[in-house]
Amino acid sequence: MTNPDPADQAAASRFGFGTQIRKSPFFDATVRWGATGFSVYNHMYIPRDFGDPVQNFWNLVNSATLSDVAVERQVEITGPDAARFTQLLTPRNLSQCAVGQCKYVLITNAGGGILNDPVLLRLGENHFWLSLADSDILLWAQGVAVHSGMDVEISEPDVSPLQLQGPNSGKIMQALFGEEISRLRYYWLEEHELDGIPLIVSRTGWSSELGYEIYLHDGSRGDELWERIMAAGKPYGLAPGHTSSIRRIEAGMLSYHADMDIDTNPFELGLDRLVDLEMEADFIGKAALARIAREGVSRLQVGLEIDGEPLPGPNTEYWPIKLSGEPAGQVTSAVYSPRLESNIALAMVRIEHSALDTRVEIEMPSGSRHAKVVRKPFYDPGKNLPKG
Amino acid sequence: MTNPDPADQAAASRFGFGTQIRKSPFFDATVRWGATGFSVYNHMYIPRDFGDPVQNFWNLVNSATLSDVAVERQVEITGPDAARFTQLLTPRNLSQCAVGQCKYVLITNAGGGILNDPVLLRLGENHFWLSLADSDILLWAQGVAVHSGMDVEISEPDVSPLQLQGPNSGKIMQALFGEEISRLRYYWLEEHELDGIPLIVSRTGWSSELGYEIYLHDGSRGDELWERIMAAGKPYGLAPGHTSSIRRIEAGMLSYHADMDIDTNPFELGLDRLVDLEMEADFIGKAALARIAREGVSRLQVGLEIDGEPLPGPNTEYWPIKLSGEPAGQVTSAVYSPRLESNIALAMVRIEHSALDTRVEIEMPSGSRHAKVVRKPFYDPGKNLPKG
Repeated sequence: MTNPDPADQAAASRFGFGTQIRKSPFFDATVRWGATGFSVYNHMYIPRDFGDPVQNFWNLVNSATLSDVAVERQVEITGPDAARFTQLLTPRNLSQCAVGQCKYVLITNAGGGILNDPVLLRLGENHFWLSLADSDILLWAQGVAVHSGMDVEISEPDVSPLQLQGPNSGKIMQALFGEEISRLRYYWLEEHELDGIPLIVSRTGWSSELGYEIYLHDGSRGDELWERIMAAGKPYGLAPGHTSSIRRIEAGMLSYHADMDIDTNPFELGLDRLVDLEMEADFIGKAALARIAREGVSRLQVGLEIDGEPLPGPNTEYWPIKLSGEPAGQVTSAVYSPRLESNIALAMVRIEHSALDTRVEIEMPSGSRHAKVVRKPFYDPGKNLPKG
Repeated sequence: MTNPDPADQAAASRFGFGTQIRKSPFFDATVRWGATGFSVYNHMYIPRDFGDPVQNFWNLVNSATLSDVAVERQVEITGPDAARFTQLLTPRNLSQCAVGQCKYVLITNAGGGILNDPVLLRLGENHFWLSLADSDILLWAQGVAVHSGMDVEISEPDVSPLQLQGPNSGKIMQALFGEEISRLRYYWLEEHELDGIPLIVSRTGWSSELGYEIYLHDGSRGDELWERIMAAGKPYGLAPGHTSSIRRIEAGMLSYHADMDIDTNPFELGLDRLVDLEMEADFIGKAALARIAREGVSRLQVGLEIDGEPLPGPNTEYWPIKLSGEPAGQVTSAVYSPRLESNIALAMVRIEHSALDTRVEIEMPSGSRHAKVVRKPFYDPGKNLPKG
């Protein structure tokens, strides 16, 4: 009789099918370090559970966590027209984006709808990565290129990021890469090597804590890299973890598909700073976004505090919002913050109900609750920066 | 204390996060009818487990199964240039595709790599749906349209298919829609209504059994439609189910990402019949595919029979193939067929090892096994048709 690999069996029992979904180069390491549940993102497994999401949150905000975010696939754009083509993909003005710099950008379609909100990394004059949220921007970019008349190459390289986030992440990075890493500025990147493993390191993340992303170039060395970082982090309380819904909602950070999608435009999210309608360069969606800017939006994303008992977990569906019995919008992301001791949520509401202190009613599967429009982010110790 | 919805709690415990992944209009119904495990496909949950995949196989081949395949999202293409634009997306010659007809097509990029293998439905002269495998062809098609100079609208309509498959599916369809439905030909479609629910019905599926797909137009009526079909199917042994890996591998049908991807071309899969290099119309990938056709391919998909004990379940990773100790390819999909009493697999091998009866070695996590190249499909009772 055969003796199947335990990791294989675990994955099979949870998912029960074949190779249609990819494993990350860190998959085996995360199973070994206690990952008990996975989800799927960009056609790849992502660990979402190391036992207790509240403990994961405290690990993140009190010490540091290492998370497998290999699902953040990279779209690599190179070739003589790469800079011009990359600008075409985003309403954010990239003319001041230096080589070595990163930018949080939106990708919009011709109607101004959001297709993704990646971190852009400029690795060279004509060398870019888009570090993706959950949609196939590789196909979008290749499709746009077909008739663009521009000379570009667009591919998905063998690159898999890890996120090292939390107040102790700086010390761990120094232990790994030397003291000079502390000079790496927010939303900048550097090339590094660790035991001969070639890496890109950027001061970015999805936590609003001090944090870094470490991009592995050679998938075959994932296990080695994970163990090396965990060992360096041991004296600093580094724990294996996953991106924290609690922390990202506290920070008002958005999750693609949940809080925005192809039918959402940047102005509805209050992300006007990421749209430059004045720049000379063309980008896809410019005409539509100019029209929306002129006419104004009919709905707006707001923060909500929800009354009542702590939510047992994040919402798994959209919750309708009512005001005086009339539809007023929907809750897109909600969670209980143990630090704020409050139920906090991101919601899309009709613009006439978006003023601070507006009171609304939320229709949850368990019954209806009251909530109040409040300022975002929910938690802001002053030291945090907006997404760069 | 709140009293959460049980379906909600079940989903939360398995997946542990928010609304980033969508639920199908049939989600609640499938949970009620015994779905115990889900996967993710096109950013949506798909039921993959009703307790026993072998029982699911026998239900499918002996009576009939109803499967939630709402994850097959539709890309709708309309507008004055829709027919010309749709032809641009695929190497298959659509000039003979009548209104009311369906075609199994490949979507290729400029390099001839496969981006998806949808079923195309021609609903009108300039009205098409692409019923998708797992990739964001909505983004690809919208991207291609940007600079195409063609007048088209491309969107994802509110359409969610069910698959009713198996030898008894014909009788169940007659009970639902009347006797005349039996005249619906293989790979044709019709508009229908059931209790005032507007539907499209096509004689297609992913089982190689007699079967139908039923496309729900109004997501709010998913529960009602599911129950109506289950009730009509009761006298014919209809069981709730999911697409069967066993049956589709028996038939040599392909699973996108598992058996092919952006780095695979149609000729490597032996799908030459889906590429027409002679047609006048242009399509994306034509030059690259013409070059590949001229130069030939260096690898080919084959069927394998694997020696030894029954496999405990489908492979969850690619298994390397060796011949005389040298790398010869990889197994992409493997499963034990209880009908054939054999381990059957699809594999991509170097072309010099693709001849029938070639013996190879497979490196599984549990150890190495011998296998033999055999003819596909593995099971063909003669009455089955190739994908139309």
